[in-house]
Order: sequence, then structure tokens, then C-alpha cells
Amino acid sequence: MSVGVPEEPLDARCKSPQLVEMHTFRDAVDVNYQRMAITGEELSGVPLEDLKDAASHLIEALRMRNQYMEKIGNQFPITTKRFLSGEYPANLPKFRRKNTEITANTSFNPPEPPKDHWGLNTPLPVFSTKYTLRRQNGVTEVCGEDGNLIPSLAEFYVSKDQFLADTERLTQMIVDGPLKSFCFRRLSYLQNKFQLHVLLNELRELHEQKSVSHRDFYNIRKVDTHIHAASSMNQKHLLRFIKKKIKTEADTVVLEKNKQPVTMKEVFKKMGIDAYDLSVDMLDVHADRNTFHRFDKFNTKYNPVGESTLREIFIKTDNYVEGKYFAEVLKEVLSDLEDSKYQHAEPRLSIYGRSKDEWDKLAKWAITHDVWSPNARWLIQVPRLYDIYKAKNMVQTFDELLDNVFTPLFEVTNDPSSHPELFRFLQQVSGIDSVDDESKHEYVHFDRSTPTPAAYKDAENPPYNYYLFYMYANLTALNAFRRERGMNTFSLRPHCGEAGHVNHLLTGYLLSESIAHGILLRKVPVLQYLFYLTQMGIAMSPLSNNSLFISYQRNPLPEYLQKGLNVSLSTDDPLQFHYTKEALMEEYSIAAQVWKLSSCDMCELARNSVMQSGFEDKVKIHWLGPNYREEGVVGNDIHRTNVPDIRVSFRHEAHVDELCNLFRVQHLTHQAE
Amino acid sequence: MSVGVPEEPLDARCKSPQLVEMHTFRDAVDVNYQRMAITGEELSGVPLEDLKDAASHLIEALRMRNQYMEKIGNQFPITTKRFLSGEYPANLPKFRRKNTEITANTSFNPPEPPKDHWGLNTPLPVFSTKYTLRRQNGVTEVCGEDGNLIPSLAEFYVSKDQFLADTERLTQMIVDGPLKSFCFRRLSYLQNKFQLHVLLNELRELHEQKSVSHRDFYNIRKVDTHIHAASSMNQKHLLRFIKKKIKTEADTVVLEKNKQPVTMKEVFKKMGIDAYDLSVDMLDVHADRNTFHRFDKFNTKYNPVGESTLREIFIKTDNYVEGKYFAEVLKEVLSDLEDSKYQHAEPRLSIYGRSKDEWDKLAKWAITHDVWSPNARWLIQVPRLYDIYKAKNMVQTFDELLDNVFTPLFEVTNDPSSHPELFRFLQQVSGIDSVDDESKHEYVHFDRSTPTPAAYKDAENPPYNYYLFYMYANLTALNAFRRERGMNTFSLRPHCGEAGHVNHLLTGYLLSESIAHGILLRKVPVLQYLFYLTQMGIAMSPLSNNSLFISYQRNPLPEYLQKGLNVSLSTDDPLQFHYTKEALMEEYSIAAQVWKLSSCDMCELARNSVMQSGFEDKVKIHWLGPNYREEGVVGNDIHRTNVPDIRVSFRHEAHVDELCNLFRVQHLTHQAE
Repeated sequence: MSVGVPEEPLDARCKSPQLVEMHTFRDAVDVNYQRMAITGEELSGVPLEDLKDAASHLIEALRMRNQYMEKIGNQFPITTKRFLSGEYPANLPKFRRKNTEITANTSFNPPEPPKDHWGLNTPLPVFSTKYTLRRQNGVTEVCGEDGNLIPSLAEFYVSKDQFLADTERLTQMIVDGPLKSFCFRRLSYLQNKFQLHVLLNELRELHEQKSVSHRDFYNIRKVDTHIHAASSMNQKHLLRFIKKKIKTEADTVVLEKNKQPVTMKEVFKKMGIDAYDLSVDMLDVHADRNTFHRFDKFNTKYNPVGESTLREIFIKTDNYVEGKYFAEVLKEVLSDLEDSKYQHAEPRLSIYGRSKDEWDKLAKWAITHDVWSPNARWLIQVPRLYDIYKAKNMVQTFDELLDNVFTPLFEVTNDPSSHPELFRFLQQVSGIDSVDDESKHEYVHFDRSTPTPAAYKDAENPPYNYYLFYMYANLTALNAFRRERGMNTFSLRPHCGEAGHVNHLLTGYLLSESIAHGILLRKVPVLQYLFYLTQMGIAMSPLSNNSLFISYQRNPLPEYLQKGLNVSLSTDDPLQFHYTKEALMEEYSIAAQVWKLSSCDMCELARNSVMQSGFEDKVKIHWLGPNYREEGVVGNDIHRTNVPDIRVSFRHEAHVDELCNLFRVQHLTHQAE
Repeated sequence: MSVGVPEEPLDARCKSPQLVEMHTFRDAVDVNYQRMAITGEELSGVPLEDLKDAASHLIEALRMRNQYMEKIGNQFPITTKRFLSGEYPANLPKFRRKNTEITANTSFNPPEPPKDHWGLNTPLPVFSTKYTLRRQNGVTEVCGEDGNLIPSLAEFYVSKDQFLADTERLTQMIVDGPLKSFCFRRLSYLQNKFQLHVLLNELRELHEQKSVSHRDFYNIRKVDTHIHAASSMNQKHLLRFIKKKIKTEADTVVLEKNKQPVTMKEVFKKMGIDAYDLSVDMLDVHADRNTFHRFDKFNTKYNPVGESTLREIFIKTDNYVEGKYFAEVLKEVLSDLEDSKYQHAEPRLSIYGRSKDEWDKLAKWAITHDVWSPNARWLIQVPRLYDIYKAKNMVQTFDELLDNVFTPLFEVTNDPSSHPELFRFLQQVSGIDSVDDESKHEYVHFDRSTPTPAAYKDAENPPYNYYLFYMYANLTALNAFRRERGMNTFSLRPHCGEAGHVNHLLTGYLLSESIAHGILLRKVPVLQYLFYLTQMGIAMSPLSNNSLFISYQRNPLPEYLQKGLNVSLSTDDPLQFHYTKEALMEEYSIAAQVWKLSSCDMCELARNSVMQSGFEDKVKIHWLGPNYREEGVVGNDIHRTNVPDIRVSFRHEAHVDELCNLFRVQHLTHQAE
């Protein structure tokens, strides 16, 4: 292994120029730094046969994910796509140039959003064709007058058989011994290569950052890619808010008990607490040593003072006061974000699927209280709680839950005037999340014999992949329908790999645009390598993990970052985990201190977070640069991201190298046959 | 070992009630929690002979420190003192009661400080007797008309021979094998006992905290016990400040070069930077991976944009603009503290000892710019830079440096009108710190042959203990003099045990009230145990250590805390280490997260910090409670400190147990003789 930029032409030093080329792709954009060139005839340190097998498996897995993402219309990286389409590696560009002119002409800030951000003064679109909707196989079908699926959408209905077959293929792969070794070696290689890169180029990267005027870690855009709205304020903030309300709204009726109105004063009187008394200790919402590996205990921390009443009053959207207090406190959080200017968030709001009017109520809540900010885009989280609703007789079949969650979305797409507020609210929603304790044991297994949703009447909860598949299936059809009607579409961004079975990650790999957590990827090298190759986003929350599943020091984030996985930092629940007023900065600070991250590492994490986020293109081009969708260095604008071109170039070249490695071997195989 | 509160009387279970009593002191104040009682006849797990030897050594070491502290008039814990005086263990109280009445009648907040906080309208005190001052043996002597030391002060002049003899005794102890083992075992025992305590009482402690109204970690007083004024703002704050000044004071002359005035604009023009350009990256004041074990590199981080000019302009008190900008930015820091209400700090300002007017200039700077806050008390840091000044011909002998540092303090004590501003400024100063890179090699050794300060003309720097001894000697005389005149006195609170030789810690143990850092105590069990027994304060800064000397995960703070050492948390240099606006909260947050500290642990750290701080008694009685000087539970007021009585009781009983262990054995020895 020789290190450094070779002075003499590479082909003078080894017999087979082709092999060298294969192992050191050099992006045609000129960025100067110390690169590592690997010479010698050997391939990736494994026998050629193993390499061939590995390549064919991995490419098959890449194709799978590509197909799922194309169907649902979620992100898939352009580089990997070009390899799959056969354009690369043969036609890797020989010359690329940064378009600096368009960059110079693009403002650093997106245009001011319209005053009427909900579009209340914009008439709802009217569509001449209205379709019939029906539930079939767990999915809402959009049918024409003939009662059949409309042809343009037909291809967007996916079959569970295909999914189960793909799951099976992938399951075989992740337990395949030689493939595991291969992926593990490649990941180790990537990590080592990064460490070498840093040793050689750290000062150059720093220099590049220093020479960019004005921009530093504090004024680059960062998005909190995973945060729950109900716990987005910190404990001190919620405490202050509650105290204020006890004082100013003592006589407001906040709930009904036995048909009797109960005022704020009475609620607290009954608990024996007055405003002055209340402390953070009493509030008791912070995770502590006793929540570790106890998700159940953690969930009760959502109840201030251990009282579900307070949760009901203060952090619910649908309650006696119509979510007034929750809206107020949330708007304070949003306003803090706006003050910070560069901090953004994607808070999750809940839809449970217990009844069909949940969406309308939520939309009404958001619009009535104007819960909106240019610094936030909403995600909707659907808790996996079928078993609870079933036990309480709120739903009879799993399909009812799906019907409650998805049918209103189809209806409003079919005819906006059917749910006018929902129509407007959805324009601010960028994706759907699936949430719950992944460590719960799954009693049911999803296979060909599992009942369809309409026939699913079991008292047990269906497994993670059953939930996710039907969410995917409905979203795919919905997105296609919305795309056809010119509306925004949704990403599927579930919690995944925080705990529980490996097949959660496998399902996430196939069906979701990005995931939250992913700490269990550390145990599954094949999937980890696939996550790398497809640059799937992972929104990680090491402080949250520290209280629940893995201690800070053992969190795999720094390792993922070194290998080049697409990771971002997020807070999850500032109410439970953070101490300062600036939860996201606290998260970055701790990561930087404990893992000794450089300014460049931190800016890379921040850039990843914007990339992963659901903010619209028209916003991202201002935050990341107008070319941000381009591959490698051409897509980077250090004046906005503060990420050195050197780092981006290194990442891109490493990524292309890995893909070349696989696709060239496959090519050789084809030639040999 | 039996665990839990014994149901039957202890003496029913073992033959020698005396032995049980010896091992389980129970404070006569009634606090209910699960205690551990040790039964059986064996003593501390070592042979009786070893125990006797250990006890006699340790008690000798305790006596030494007690004498040094009595002379200088710095804190020494009352419990240990009572053992040394022979009052304990025989007369350990049988009954103690909390004085709750006085507590109830003491406000939570100290009275508003007078508007004229510098006392500018108060006439200076006039003393009929004025003494002559002379330098002798490295100390300023206060002499009467007869030219001799005045008798009342004579006992406060200490001899270097005594110090060297004590050092030698202590050095023998810390390398004594059996004593090392003994101390190591006791410390391990303390740590284990604490862990058991937590397992048994965690929920009770939490419950005690919850049942205290209003009070929580956010609204208890905490003092940043170790922070340098010049780096007390974070990097973003300094950046904003500089940018603002470039804009608003472009034409202000800020320095003189070759006798030509240079304006702010010109300074930045020469550097090729304009206000908009400047970023945190360019500022480059943050510690990074490259400062680890490179204190020299770290020191250069004090220069913004690597330019000592900017340091000169913005963070010096004595420059062309007379420290105007430094005063402004510091006042912003102080104002943030005041906004937080519960956060306080003890910032260090520098006196170098290069010339005699430094004190007057500093005092003038502070008073002219009114750099003052009820949330801050100043410490003065004296860098150990004799060798630099000597090389630059600024001083000829070491005594000149001492003379420059201490004589003005004696002069102003002798005759306040000689330095009126200094007189007033000193009322806000609580102590003296000694600072520099401890890891520098020491070429000179302090022994009987080392020249006295007046004869010290060597080009090499004198060693750490030489510096500290002469600072101690001067302070001891000065404090005695000031006490006699009814003025406030000073604590000696050096940086100590951050790096370098173990004898730094040994010297610190003898001479200083408390120390900053102390991370090397982990390697010296005898000293660590002595620090425990004397409850010496240790202001620790794990984030600072993480960038310089020991990675966060390996920091001994959590271990010290478990054992019951008197540790507090401090930031050292927010400019170099912290990311958020709330540096002290960031420090606490990271410690809490990484080491899984409970709310009780954090409140204990905060209470320690107030105890260690130089805030006056009349302030502390409001923050900690009017009885705070009392031993154990009687001294704790959970309504102010949020530290459960259970925790305080546990700490006190453990401390008394350790002391009983030593003093009873000594007693047995005496009886046997």
C-alpha cells in the first residue's frame, strides 16, 4: 500500500493499468489533497470467486432497493443509480466543472415564505375526475368508473408476495458467511482509509474551512432530523410553561370528569401542587439510570408529575381545550428555532388510526393555532398500537387501522374540498414515521400464511415488517396518485434498528427512504454495507440511546461516520434527555467532545442532516447550493455548507471505488461467461 | 458484611460492641435510609501493626495541613479539626437538632448589594500606625519603628526549612508501600460503599428531592469555580463582539506601531479580513485534536486568528485602549450570569509580576469600566513565567517578581490611601491562583541549597513548589496583616495536579485551600486519601482535560465523586472548549450524560462548588442555609441546595467512620504504650 499522490504515472509502476484504475477512481473535478493509491494485482483481499459471488448478491440487493424507492418516489443516490443502469463504471465522467456562476447568483437564504403560508386565500384545486376509493388487500385502491384500478396507477400497487420473496433473499444474504466477511472487510477498509485520510489531510481540510469567509459551524444549516413534537421542549421549558398557565389560566376549564368541568386550578389542587412548588424534580420527565433497557418506564416519563392528566392537558392536540396549550408551547419551541436562524427541525405529530377524523382534527388544530414555522416541516408518526386498540375494541381488524390512517389521505387527494384543512396541512407534511418500542417481543411472524389486513383479527400485534409493508404499500399508491395530481408526496422514514430483531433493519432497507436510530446496524455487516452503498440516511440520537439502549461511549455513530455512512445527529426527545436551552447544539457539542470530532466532521453531519431532511428542493438549493443534487464535489458549496471540497471528494471517490469494485467484477464475470 | 438497618441491637450480634461502634458511626440527627453495618472483629482488612503505622502517618499529615491552613487562615473542615484537637471521637455528639427556625427566617436571596459596590463614596480607612515594609527571605516583612518584625505578626512568617522538612516527610509517606496499600484499600472501600448506598437509597434520595417544593437542579446556586476571564466568553460570543467592534469602532485608534497610531480598520485591513468575512473557523481559538498533550499549542489558541495583536486589543486589561474592549465583553459575560440568576463564577485576572504598577492598573481598569457583578468574585492568577521575564531582562531576581506581586498588597494594607483604587478592588478579590503548563520539565530542584528569592538569578524557572511556597509565605503574612486591620483575606487556590510531577500535589496539599484540576491524584492514593480526609476542594474541568491531558471517558471525576472527595465542576476556558451559550450547564450536562449522574449527584456537585467558592459567608448563608458551616446533615438545607439529607448524612457518617478508624487505633496505641 503506498500513500500519497503518486508523482510518476501510475501505469509505470504496475503491470495492469486497468487494475489500478479499478482501485483508485479519481473524480474529474480537480481537488488537491493527499490520496491513497492501491497498487498490485490482487483484488479486495478475498478470492476472486468470493468476490464474484459477493458482487452479484450485493448488486441484486441494490436493485431491489432501487425498485422500491422508484415506486414510492423516495430518494435513491444518483451515483449508485448510474451504476445500476449500466452508465457507470464505463462512462465515469472524464471532465466535470463546478458551475460557480449559478452559485454566485443564488441567495444564501430562501425567499420569504408567503404570509398566507397555509394557502387559506388560495382556492382549493378542483379536479374534474373523481375516482372511487376502495380497500383491497390492505391498500386503498383508486378505481375508475369501470370499478377497476385506474391504469396509470396500476404499477404502483405492490404485492406482499414480492416483498416476502425479497425479504427472503435478503435474509439469506445477511447470514451468508462469505458475504458477511466480505462486507465486514470492506467496511473495515473504509474506516481505515478514512483514518488515513484524516491523518494526511486534516490540516488541509481545516485550511479550506478557514479560507471560506463568514461561514462556520454556527451559521450553517442543520436540521434536527428526528424529534417528537410532544417532547421537543426541554424539561425546564415545559415547567415554566405549566407554571405560567397555572397562574394565568387558573379558572379555565381544561377537562371534563364525570361530565363535570374541571378547571386548571382544580386539577392542581387535587394533585396538591401550586405553581410555586412545582420543580423539575417533581415534573419527573427526565430519563434516568432507571430507564436503561426499560422502554416501558421511559414511556411513562411522558407524563409530567407521573400524571397522565397533565400529558392530556399540555401535550395533546386533541383534548378538551382543543390542543391550545400544546400549540402554544410548541410555537415557543418553533420561535426559538427561528431566533437561532440556522437550526431547523422535523417534529413528529401523532396519527393513531383509531378513528377516521384524526387527520381532520390534527389539521384543524395546526391551522387554527397557526402552528407553523419556516424552520420546521412536519412528519406524522403512526404508533404501532393495533393490539391496544383491538383490546379496547376500538378497531376490529388491522385494516381498520390502516383505513383510518390512509383513506382520508386518498380522499383529500381525490377531492381536496372533502377535507379542505387537511389538504392545506398536508402541504407542510413531508413524511410518515412508524414508532414504538422495537424491543417488544413479536409473537406473530409475517409470511405467506399471515392473514391480510382485513382478515387480521388476532389479539396480538402484527410484527414490525407487516406494519411497515402496509404503510409502504399505501404510501406508494398515495404518492403516485398525488404526483399525478401535482401534489407533494411523502417519504417513509420509520424508527428502525433501535432495538429488536434484525429484520426491522432489513425491512427498513427495502422500504424506507431513511431511518431513525439504526444502532443495531453495527451487528449486521451486510446491511451496514448496503446502507453505505445506497447512502441511506440514518438519523442518530446518541443521547437518547444513552438513556435507553447503548451507553454513549459504545454508540456506533463515530464508526459509521468514519466509514462514510450517511448519518445525521438528532435529539429525539429534549424533554427527556437534554439539559440546556439549545438541545440540538448540546447534542452536537457532546458528540464533538466525547468523540473528538473536528469542525469538518461536524459540518459534514450538519450537511447530511439537511440532505436527509424533508425540506423542499427550493429551500435546499439555498442552504446547500443550487447544484446540491450533483455527485461529489460538484454538488458541494463550501460557502454554504462549510464542508471542505476535500472531504466531499474523498467521500465520493471512496463511494465510487466501492461500487466499481462490485460492478467491474460483475462485468468480468459476464465477459467470461 | 451485612447490609441494611439491623433490626436487633447491634451488640446482640457481636462480642465487642466497641468495635461495631467504631465501624458504624451514626450521626445523632435522625435521617432514615438504608445503612450498611459492618460486624465482626477484624479491623480494616490489614494487620493491626500496619493499621497503627498508617494511622500515625496519616494523622501526622493531617496535622501538617491543619497548621498550614491555620497560619494562612484558609478553610479546614471542622470535623477533621475536632478529631485533631482530641474532641472526637470521644465526644461525638449524642444528640443534634436542626435549627429550622433560623432557616425559615433566612431569605433565599442575599440582600441587594449596595449601589456603590466599589465603596467609592465610603472614605478609606485611616490607620494611625504605619509600618515600614522590607523584603527579607522572599517575603515582605512588616516592621515597627524599631526595625523589627511587629510581634503580633511574627508567628505568621514561615520558614522554608520547615516546609522542606514537611515535604520530605510527606514524600516518604506517599512512596511508603504499606501506607499506599492501606489508602488504596480505604478509597476502594469508600467507592464500594457509595455504590451500595446508591443501590439501596437511590429512590429515597430522589423522593426527598421531589418532595421539596420549587427547588430543582436549575434553580440551585452553582459556581464556576475555575474559569479564566480572558477565555470566559465562548468562541461565538467573542466573534460577534469583534465583528460588532469592527463595524462600530472602525476609526478608533487601538494600538501604536512604530509610534504611529493604528485604527481598528487598519488592523483588520492589514490582516485582509473584513467584519462579514470573519468566522469561528478563522478565529481558530477552539482546542482541537491537535492540542492534546500540547499545552504550548493550546496557549497559542488564545490568539484570535493566530494574531497576538487581536489578543492584545480584545482580551487584555492593560493596552492602548486601556482594556476597554476586554471590559465590555467581560461585562456581557457577567450580565449573562446575572440573567441566569443561579449561575456564578470566579474568573481569574492576571498579575504577572513584571512591574509594580500592575495592581494599580488592574484596579483602575476594573473600577473605571465598572467590571463588577454580584454573580462574580475575582481571583488573581500569577503565571509562573520568571524565566521569560528574566530572559527579556524585565526582572533580575526571582524576588523582584515576588516583590512586584506582593509588595503593593502590603502597601495598600499598611496605608489604603497609597493605592486607593487597589484598596477598593481588593475587596472583590477572594484568592490567588498560580498558573502555567505543569507538564514543563523542571530543571531546578527546591532543596536547602536552592538560593533564596533575592539570590535567585538562574535563567531557568524555579520549580512549582518554590513558586507556591513563596506565594504561600507572602500570603500568610499578608492575610495576618489584613486580618489585624479588619480587611478581607485571600485564599491560595492554585492550578495543581493537571500534569507534571507528583510533588505539585504534595505541595498543594500542604499549602493551598483548594486546587484546580487534580486529575493526577488518581495516581497517588496516599494523597488522594488525605484530600478525602481533609475534604480539600478540587475544581475539575473534564472538558478542558479532554482537550489537553486525559480523554473524557478516563477522567477520574466520577470515581472521586463516588469516593466522597470534595469535587466541583468548572469550565476553565469556554472560549476554547465549549459550544453552547451556557458553558457551565454544558459542562454539567455532558458529565451527567456520559457518567450517568443522578440529579442528586449533580446537586451535590453544585453544593460543593458553592462551598469551595470565595463568596462571602454573608452570601453563602442565603445560598446554602444559615447553618451551612455545621457538620453533616445539620449544615444542609435541602430547600436551598436540593441535596437530600440522606446523601449528606451518608457522606458525613462515612467521613467520621474513616477518621474514627484512624484516631481510635492511635488511641489504642497510646493506651498500650
